[in-house]
Amino acid sequence: MPRYSQMSKTELLKEEIDLKASYQSYCDMNFKLDMSRGKPAPEQLDLALDLLKITDYTGETGIDARNYGFLEGMPEARTFFAEIMGCEKEEVIVGGSASLQLMYFLIELAYRTGFPESDKAWKDYQNIKFLCPAPGYDRHFRITEHFGFDLVTVPMTQNGPDMDMVEELVASDPTVKGMWCVPKYSNPDGITYSNETVERLAKLKTAATDFKIFWDNAYIVHDLKDQGDVLLNLLAECKKYDTQNRVFEFCSTSKISFSGAGVGALAASTDNVKYVLKNLLPMLISFDKLNQLRHVKYFKNLDGVKAHMQKHRALIEPKFDAVLEILHSELTPCEDITKWTNPNGGYFISFYAANGTAKKIVAMCKAAGVVLTGAGDTFPYGKDPDDSNIRIAPTFPPIQELISATQLFVTCTKLATVQKLLEE
Amino acid sequence: MPRYSQMSKTELLKEEIDLKASYQSYCDMNFKLDMSRGKPAPEQLDLALDLLKITDYTGETGIDARNYGFLEGMPEARTFFAEIMGCEKEEVIVGGSASLQLMYFLIELAYRTGFPESDKAWKDYQNIKFLCPAPGYDRHFRITEHFGFDLVTVPMTQNGPDMDMVEELVASDPTVKGMWCVPKYSNPDGITYSNETVERLAKLKTAATDFKIFWDNAYIVHDLKDQGDVLLNLLAECKKYDTQNRVFEFCSTSKISFSGAGVGALAASTDNVKYVLKNLLPMLISFDKLNQLRHVKYFKNLDGVKAHMQKHRALIEPKFDAVLEILHSELTPCEDITKWTNPNGGYFISFYAANGTAKKIVAMCKAAGVVLTGAGDTFPYGKDPDDSNIRIAPTFPPIQELISATQLFVTCTKLATVQKLLEE
Repeated sequence: MPRYSQMSKTELLKEEIDLKASYQSYCDMNFKLDMSRGKPAPEQLDLALDLLKITDYTGETGIDARNYGFLEGMPEARTFFAEIMGCEKEEVIVGGSASLQLMYFLIELAYRTGFPESDKAWKDYQNIKFLCPAPGYDRHFRITEHFGFDLVTVPMTQNGPDMDMVEELVASDPTVKGMWCVPKYSNPDGITYSNETVERLAKLKTAATDFKIFWDNAYIVHDLKDQGDVLLNLLAECKKYDTQNRVFEFCSTSKISFSGAGVGALAASTDNVKYVLKNLLPMLISFDKLNQLRHVKYFKNLDGVKAHMQKHRALIEPKFDAVLEILHSELTPCEDITKWTNPNGGYFISFYAANGTAKKIVAMCKAAGVVLTGAGDTFPYGKDPDDSNIRIAPTFPPIQELISATQLFVTCTKLATVQKLLEE
Repeated sequence: MPRYSQMSKTELLKEEIDLKASYQSYCDMNFKLDMSRGKPAPEQLDLALDLLKITDYTGETGIDARNYGFLEGMPEARTFFAEIMGCEKEEVIVGGSASLQLMYFLIELAYRTGFPESDKAWKDYQNIKFLCPAPGYDRHFRITEHFGFDLVTVPMTQNGPDMDMVEELVASDPTVKGMWCVPKYSNPDGITYSNETVERLAKLKTAATDFKIFWDNAYIVHDLKDQGDVLLNLLAECKKYDTQNRVFEFCSTSKISFSGAGVGALAASTDNVKYVLKNLLPMLISFDKLNQLRHVKYFKNLDGVKAHMQKHRALIEPKFDAVLEILHSELTPCEDITKWTNPNGGYFISFYAANGTAKKIVAMCKAAGVVLTGAGDTFPYGKDPDDSNIRIAPTFPPIQELISATQLFVTCTKLATVQKLLEE
């Protein structure tokens, strides 16, 4: 089939009629599918069912995980996450079931009090700017928006955020206080920051004395290929330049064990760990150490986690492949207009539709019963300047539903593309 | 033995020598016991061991508790806590493992944003006052101190906080924004607020439009006697006066199932529930629903919880009795100077030493290896104006150690009392 961009108006009008008919046939199928979030499928959650059977409650140093205390987490859980994140046990705080809550807490702390090296609390600035590599994770952007910070979009490149722009933004403006990063298999683009990007982040000369990088390593062990991406260790790099107090790294087992019932953890310099613990103390006596212990007893160590992630991969790789195959085979008429990612890991395929059509495509899918992530949600304030990016989350639906939904999606994409060309 | 207050100086000096010898003999026993917190004993935690064996993960409405979603909590968990707190399911948010974290969050929300009926965020006041019935719970006072509020001590009476004083304080000063309460088996005095106290709290005319009562019903089912105290339902009372947006009620299973690994919950008006959920949304996707489900499947309902609490009582009542017996039999020489509570429930015996001796008694116990709650910790800013109150937490130690520790405690108390009389 020829490309739409080469077609005459008559040909496009005929194609529009065919695509509308096709779309209608999908509407008649009465889909009811929510693909809006990166949720594991039930079969993935089944992989860790034996974790729920673990009833040991005594830690390796004799701590009774059922009782109060040890705000910093079970010692073996600190060791476990230290191995995963590549740092020292003393650099880890093991939290509750949501790493997002730890991020929120740190933003709240900065807002109300600031950090040891802050001139003043962030609330006492007229405005605070936070760098948001985009497309990115909506829940990150939402936290800083909620606290009233100005979100500054930094475009993503194949190597991570546009570092020239980052360096320029932080160099002279002391109100640029921090930056959100999903450095490995970024949400939604699946990009892993290059070594140069990580080094430049470690070396960054910032006008703010208290510039913080929120390094959400959410997909740290979430490979989809035999050769997974390798991310340079930011905390280690920062130590070379004495900027280690700049980093808060996060990870969680939300997409390893259970989503919303896993364990989240924070890695930071020992100075930061002390400061965070001091300020966590008024909030709670301790996190759920039973769940921490359950996870360590089940996974044991990084090798155990990696072996488990291979089982996840076996379940989700066919889903990614099915979507990619349909996109590849069905979107040839607009292959010069649309593009998408083929990530080495993570949870998403990032799709770029013709500019100005993403909202329309998502709306058409929704009208036919398939809810995608809202177009624009991957950008600060929910506004994609190009109205182009759509985040596809292939993991949750059963594969047959996923295939039908993707066929619907390509039909909507083609129809929106044809209609855009007709309007031009 | 005659009372110390009747003794001559010579008799007191002789008594001091005997008590010092006795104290030294306790020191030689090399105690190592931490009684500083109200911690359940391991035997109590064993009572709910079968809870850890529950591996069902599907809720009664088909929700997979292992996946994201349902920020308000599992439906059956809302029903469960609604029955416990005596309210509607829609008035409940079921949280994570720490109700303290929910309290902290609400104070943070008030500080940063305020409530719907607030004139402005609490941070935008020159200062905020919070009423602290004392003696009370140090972790409550600490939260509001941490946010920089002024803590205003309200004396506890046998019926709850001094309501004349509360009414006067809130009537004219719009910066009096809230109040901490442990209304049933108060920490540490074991007092349950009278019906009149609860009614007066519901009816309170406050200068602040956004006055909030933090109603921490931590010991809601924690009876130590056949006839437990009955507390009037504040949320229900408030509805009579259209003041239901004034109340945030909390409870948790920390001293029912596991401490720090149980489930906490919040009850409030449906308007407040909506407001809280809207503001929780940026912080996390959902609380740990697996732990919520585990608890509901194990305890089933309020009757199940009550039956379980009888097992706790069987383990801890003998410990309370042992302490009370020693205090009663050993402290006759200072029975006109010291006093203590015999609570119908809760976790503490509240001891009132001769004014000016509490810190000394606690320090002597510590030097002999028994760590008690810091003297003064039960008062705002950790300062007991009388230096008299000492919180005794009998639950954690094995009973023989508890008996020895209490004997040490009475020896220290007697010695401090004698020395005080000698100084006068």
